[in-house]
Amino acid sequence: MENIRNYIQDHKERFLEELFGLIRIPSISSESEKKPEMIRAAEYWKKLLLDAGADHAEMMPTEGNPVVYGEKLADPSAPTVLVYGHYDVMPVDPVDLWKTPPFEPEVREGKIFARGADDDKGQAFMQAKAFEYLVKTGTLPCNVKFMIEGEEEVGSPSIAKWCKEKKDMLKADIILVSDTSMIAEDIPSITTGLRGLCYMEVEVTGPNRDLHSGLFGGAVANPANVLAKMIASLTDEKHRITIPGFYEDVLAVREEERNMLGRAPFDLQAYRKALDIHDVCGEEGYSTLERTGIRPSLDVNGIWSGYTGEGAKTVIPSKAYAKISMRLVPNQDHHKIAELFQKHFISLAPPYVRVKVTALHGGQAYVSPIDMVAYRAAEKAYEDTWNRKPVPVRSGGSIPIISTFEQVLGIKSILMGFGLESDAIHSPNENFPLAQLYRGIETIVHFYGHFAHMSRQA
Amino acid sequence: MENIRNYIQDHKERFLEELFGLIRIPSISSESEKKPEMIRAAEYWKKLLLDAGADHAEMMPTEGNPVVYGEKLADPSAPTVLVYGHYDVMPVDPVDLWKTPPFEPEVREGKIFARGADDDKGQAFMQAKAFEYLVKTGTLPCNVKFMIEGEEEVGSPSIAKWCKEKKDMLKADIILVSDTSMIAEDIPSITTGLRGLCYMEVEVTGPNRDLHSGLFGGAVANPANVLAKMIASLTDEKHRITIPGFYEDVLAVREEERNMLGRAPFDLQAYRKALDIHDVCGEEGYSTLERTGIRPSLDVNGIWSGYTGEGAKTVIPSKAYAKISMRLVPNQDHHKIAELFQKHFISLAPPYVRVKVTALHGGQAYVSPIDMVAYRAAEKAYEDTWNRKPVPVRSGGSIPIISTFEQVLGIKSILMGFGLESDAIHSPNENFPLAQLYRGIETIVHFYGHFAHMSRQA
Repeated sequence: MENIRNYIQDHKERFLEELFGLIRIPSISSESEKKPEMIRAAEYWKKLLLDAGADHAEMMPTEGNPVVYGEKLADPSAPTVLVYGHYDVMPVDPVDLWKTPPFEPEVREGKIFARGADDDKGQAFMQAKAFEYLVKTGTLPCNVKFMIEGEEEVGSPSIAKWCKEKKDMLKADIILVSDTSMIAEDIPSITTGLRGLCYMEVEVTGPNRDLHSGLFGGAVANPANVLAKMIASLTDEKHRITIPGFYEDVLAVREEERNMLGRAPFDLQAYRKALDIHDVCGEEGYSTLERTGIRPSLDVNGIWSGYTGEGAKTVIPSKAYAKISMRLVPNQDHHKIAELFQKHFISLAPPYVRVKVTALHGGQAYVSPIDMVAYRAAEKAYEDTWNRKPVPVRSGGSIPIISTFEQVLGIKSILMGFGLESDAIHSPNENFPLAQLYRGIETIVHFYGHFAHMSRQA
Repeated sequence: MENIRNYIQDHKERFLEELFGLIRIPSISSESEKKPEMIRAAEYWKKLLLDAGADHAEMMPTEGNPVVYGEKLADPSAPTVLVYGHYDVMPVDPVDLWKTPPFEPEVREGKIFARGADDDKGQAFMQAKAFEYLVKTGTLPCNVKFMIEGEEEVGSPSIAKWCKEKKDMLKADIILVSDTSMIAEDIPSITTGLRGLCYMEVEVTGPNRDLHSGLFGGAVANPANVLAKMIASLTDEKHRITIPGFYEDVLAVREEERNMLGRAPFDLQAYRKALDIHDVCGEEGYSTLERTGIRPSLDVNGIWSGYTGEGAKTVIPSKAYAKISMRLVPNQDHHKIAELFQKHFISLAPPYVRVKVTALHGGQAYVSPIDMVAYRAAEKAYEDTWNRKPVPVRSGGSIPIISTFEQVLGIKSILMGFGLESDAIHSPNENFPLAQLYRGIETIVHFYGHFAHMSRQA
């Protein structure tokens, strides 16, 4: 039997060609004019799954973009793995900071540069290729189902309802996801926690039209100045969030778990250097890894008002806007946080402006237990590839749908991600190292073997 | 002799045609790609002046856009009036709020709607037509010089140097400017004070690239949040500006002058209603007219950072920007204020961000004495047209060049503006009532007569 390393070696050119074809489709889910691209990306995935050896694959409609579903049911007595991934990507602006066009993938210094190279086209593609190997070599030890959605980057608004309707079809023992990262290329890790997300948009209205700042300046509230004050007051000098009730449901992490987290390798010097910052900045009393792993946060993701072009325009803008999101930790409910935010933000508004607050999307935090079979199988799989036991880590990122899956389908997820911090996901020059792509495929193949074996033992 | 009202009646269609031709040229001085339009607008003005009866007119180069200069020197013993205006206009964004395209003038409900309809194409055009009437009817009682520049909306960076070089050519007894507004269509007023301007741009840099707000949120300073805090701290709860030394050179206005200002007609209820605001907002201890007339102010004219498109993007932006300007009162020096701002803003920056502060432009405040001949002549001219004595008012706006003229040329200005607050200058749907256009031309004609007569008496 051909082993997986040889198989990758023999087929790597075709693999890249197939992945590049997927990447070239600009499937940005937040831009409504990209609808036709979403369909193209979904069709591409359907073909990928059929070519890889699925018995059946189809585009299934949802209220939003379609989900691509495919399956190969080998043996009723074998465990079933449900692979989740997404074919949509983030916007590409500021596009002038990209060295090569975001949707024209290019390999430089052993890395694929393109939007989606990692998140999640590159990573989900590894799942398809590991599956292909197992089918083509007749060694698939599990039943496999794929669901690849097209709205992850906008908070997966349609998939919960779709999952409820397809609950029987989606029955599985574990959900397998490659959409997270490892500590470093030589330090494998498995994400065991994800933060939740509550994403809001605010609009502050002052006068009913843009005003001349000379004729009115000093006498009429400027909504941009007011918005700055409102945002400024959302955090205090200790970098804690000031929204009343915000921390109410945050569970204190036990001392021993904090100690374990503290043992994860982390080089502050290198971290600062990589970001070119003089210093880190966050909630008093917590380390950098704790700040992103076990504590909530609040960030302005976008702000805009008035004249933003070249030169000067002496205007008091009529409106000022911001996108503000909060990362949440287990036990914080994103619906409740959205309500608290809305109530507080409206209460901050002085009488001379009007404020509108909209919840754009949200998702619950998630914790993955390290004693479940899938975790132990994944641990062994990483060890097979890296000769090193992976570290369990709490990631600061959110995959809101993961907690929804648990809620709706009653299935836990195992997050086997192979991204690196340097992949610049959501940023210009997103990239994915070829070495991670190949090792990822290999590790997933090992996972299937261990998972089937250990499930039978359990 | 044909009187001015009849002359306007007989020629009004041609007047509109000529003004519309000028308006249709999108001469936005802050947009560098509009350079060819600036030249077209200047050429248009040269022709306007020659057609109106100037002996001579030409486009004179400066370091920036050309100045159109024209003259008719009637009589060495008569006083000389130097007319100032500008052919450049403000940008038009947000363009989707315009009911009709900004450079396609349209008359609706007796008003011309277009960018520049008032500021300053419409207003400067009145000067050309009053001049035309006096020339064509052989009744011009003064020598007249015109200088129409193309950089007023970006702070007139080139004209001071040009004036220094052309000081002899520009010799005059008074500078006549139509670029301000009246209290209301039935309440004529003359602007006797203008605020100065100090316009800054700031850039706050956090990490060297946009970051994923999940992976980094809470651990790395977000420049948009930091900028909001910095801006928030620039004013206190009493709406006073907190920059150290900012008020140092502000002269307290005498009680009697404040009382006089307080007598200017002002309807707070109507003001609030026109702007659709629940309340005004400004420095504690001052009325609305005082806040714009005799007190300095600070406004965010633009702010931008991160993702500002449709939907959600979970990003920590690398950079955040703002345009911040301050209106200044007499005796405040805009160069000094720019330095104070810069020093203070940099001192506000926490160690985890980098800050860049640039002065975009500035101008000094100006006060026009109400006992000079030109003021008294203008007073009579308004009374001729409106049957009502005009009120002297301190405007909150800035025409930075006015104080420069006094400094460089040693000539005072008289600000005979006919705009209305409802003209929405610098805003979408800028407009100018035809009635003001015609009355303005008439009033300027009267001014020339009174000014020549009173100058001879003085």
